[in-house]
Amino acid sequence: MTDAVPTELLADRLRRAAEFAAEQDTDVLFLTPGTDLRYLTGFDGASHERLTCLIVPAAGHRAPPALVVPKLEAPGFADVPLEALGIDLLTWTDGEDPYLLVSDLAGGPTRMSVDDGMPARHVLALRDAFPDVPQSLGGPVLRELRMRKDAAEVARLRAAGEAIDRVHARMGEMLRPGRTEAEVGADITAAIVAEGHAEAAFVIVGSGPNGASPHHDVSDRVIEAGDVVVIDIGGPLPDGYNSDCTRTYAVGGEPSAQVKETYAVLQEAQERAVAAVRPGATAASIDDAARTVITEAGHGEHFIHRTGHGIGLDVHEEPYIVGGNELVLEPGMAFSIEPGIYQAGGWGARIEDIVVVTADGVERLNHNPRDLVVL
Amino acid sequence: MTDAVPTELLADRLRRAAEFAAEQDTDVLFLTPGTDLRYLTGFDGASHERLTCLIVPAAGHRAPPALVVPKLEAPGFADVPLEALGIDLLTWTDGEDPYLLVSDLAGGPTRMSVDDGMPARHVLALRDAFPDVPQSLGGPVLRELRMRKDAAEVARLRAAGEAIDRVHARMGEMLRPGRTEAEVGADITAAIVAEGHAEAAFVIVGSGPNGASPHHDVSDRVIEAGDVVVIDIGGPLPDGYNSDCTRTYAVGGEPSAQVKETYAVLQEAQERAVAAVRPGATAASIDDAARTVITEAGHGEHFIHRTGHGIGLDVHEEPYIVGGNELVLEPGMAFSIEPGIYQAGGWGARIEDIVVVTADGVERLNHNPRDLVVL
Repeated sequence: MTDAVPTELLADRLRRAAEFAAEQDTDVLFLTPGTDLRYLTGFDGASHERLTCLIVPAAGHRAPPALVVPKLEAPGFADVPLEALGIDLLTWTDGEDPYLLVSDLAGGPTRMSVDDGMPARHVLALRDAFPDVPQSLGGPVLRELRMRKDAAEVARLRAAGEAIDRVHARMGEMLRPGRTEAEVGADITAAIVAEGHAEAAFVIVGSGPNGASPHHDVSDRVIEAGDVVVIDIGGPLPDGYNSDCTRTYAVGGEPSAQVKETYAVLQEAQERAVAAVRPGATAASIDDAARTVITEAGHGEHFIHRTGHGIGLDVHEEPYIVGGNELVLEPGMAFSIEPGIYQAGGWGARIEDIVVVTADGVERLNHNPRDLVVL
Repeated sequence: MTDAVPTELLADRLRRAAEFAAEQDTDVLFLTPGTDLRYLTGFDGASHERLTCLIVPAAGHRAPPALVVPKLEAPGFADVPLEALGIDLLTWTDGEDPYLLVSDLAGGPTRMSVDDGMPARHVLALRDAFPDVPQSLGGPVLRELRMRKDAAEVARLRAAGEAIDRVHARMGEMLRPGRTEAEVGADITAAIVAEGHAEAAFVIVGSGPNGASPHHDVSDRVIEAGDVVVIDIGGPLPDGYNSDCTRTYAVGGEPSAQVKETYAVLQEAQERAVAAVRPGATAASIDDAARTVITEAGHGEHFIHRTGHGIGLDVHEEPYIVGGNELVLEPGMAFSIEPGIYQAGGWGARIEDIVVVTADGVERLNHNPRDLVVL
């Protein structure tokens, strides 16, 4: 599998984005560099202070698609098949006003949408370039495409899952009493890259009481025999699709009976939530499946976050697996299932797999044992 | 020098931000994670889809400073002296509306500003949480502080300059005919980290015709004897302050007379621009000093970008050294001076130093030879 997305597929995504935009009552989408732009064009550069902006007119709106780029950054689009996609390329140089250029190209929209990650400097400059044209977020349009992964995208996420599974399988080489979380984290970072990722996007080594802080990263705390340690790691493969997997380890010997008992509740919650995934179930029902097990065991107040998040070109994207989200799951939706139980000041545990909704159920993309692994 | 910014200094920055906000007719600044928030609080975390927002009321506005944070991300602020800074901490959990919380805390502003990098998802949600309250960018407020570096910040930039100078000094180990740009770039990335940076933020290896593309990064092109190669590299030290330095190398032997002649023009242009830096000069006059030399030598059309950009916690920030910018330079302002001459399809050259305005002139923060280095 090559990293490049086939031109026909990009063309189809652009066409569908234009259709969803029209359905959602916007005339034009403005996209600056980020994952939405990467999804539609394959371009993976970063956003800078100079405006780069893809103009995607809604189906039926008068104006062709166009890309406005600083002249000196235009070579970065050499690999994007702009001509085949029917996108006009327009460059600007320092001293010119790129927002005026966008305004000239957008065909007089009466409503416009901007990508969710667009920096305020561009959002407000576009607002001023289109007086009286209301702005909305493009996320509701783009998520209609991005949250339904095609077979090639699922294959990319599967490869990402296999890569991060290989890192977890090597945890015994890295996670030992006497080392600091930061030392273990540095080894994990190297292993994430060695196993095929473009980079390590996040490395959480939460030992002992630090494991009770879900978004802890690493610290200089020395890991002690008897610690329970939460390892939550991942990052993008070179194609941009992300891994994200959590396992919890008991370091330096058997954990206490109380730890084992609590962990068994967590494991049951994660299993139940995964088993609940199928087309037609709601996102909220998956959260509820995990939460019910934990709450009934008396740990409800120790499960302090949602059950999961969608994953793809972003580590966190739609659909969110959270109470109140009545989104109905469909085949191709991919997300994490990661309940946790956190004893503030004591220890924490979390189990996370990425799953994808199949035609009749669910496929897990992480396969290492989910037991409390004793190292 | 410790990485942490002293609490008294943070308090002073917050006080001055509140004063500049009042002067610029805004009632409240909203800051999400990014370099503005790091400048004011020392917090260096990233922005996520869950809202983290510092509320900085303008001087005289009714409301105390407050920080709204997702409960599970609150431990990330453990090192920020919130109490000493007089900042109230309020947490929210999944399912709650953090924008309503911000709205309750902001003291009924009639005008608000958002940080320039705030993602649109938060910009538009704040717009909706404050109906009829006009939004402006916070950049014009924050730049009044950030573009005037204090002595400690200059010392951090000086250390960054020394670190990247050490990398350029090792270029002979890495840059050789027969290697690809990507191979050289990987070695440079490792050297940037080895010499004390937190990461390599950008690595441009523009060999032969790729050197004519100012924002080229690296490619699989094999470097040949006789190539002119532009190396533009940098990144943040652990304290967040960035390096950025460009040198141009002639690989595998003496360059042609034509290359030498053109390069001499470039070197003269860079010298003239540096020599023009002093308190009271305008940013535009520095751009003009470089551009005049290049234009008079007949290469004006080959110098396709501004002469420089401010640098600090961001690689690109105010002041921009560009035609039309009548900003008057003051002691403590730090920026790049990086003219280039680009022969499309042929080769390119650029020389870049970071400089800081002193009480009576200029200090360069990069010191390696600026000649065309023959490797």
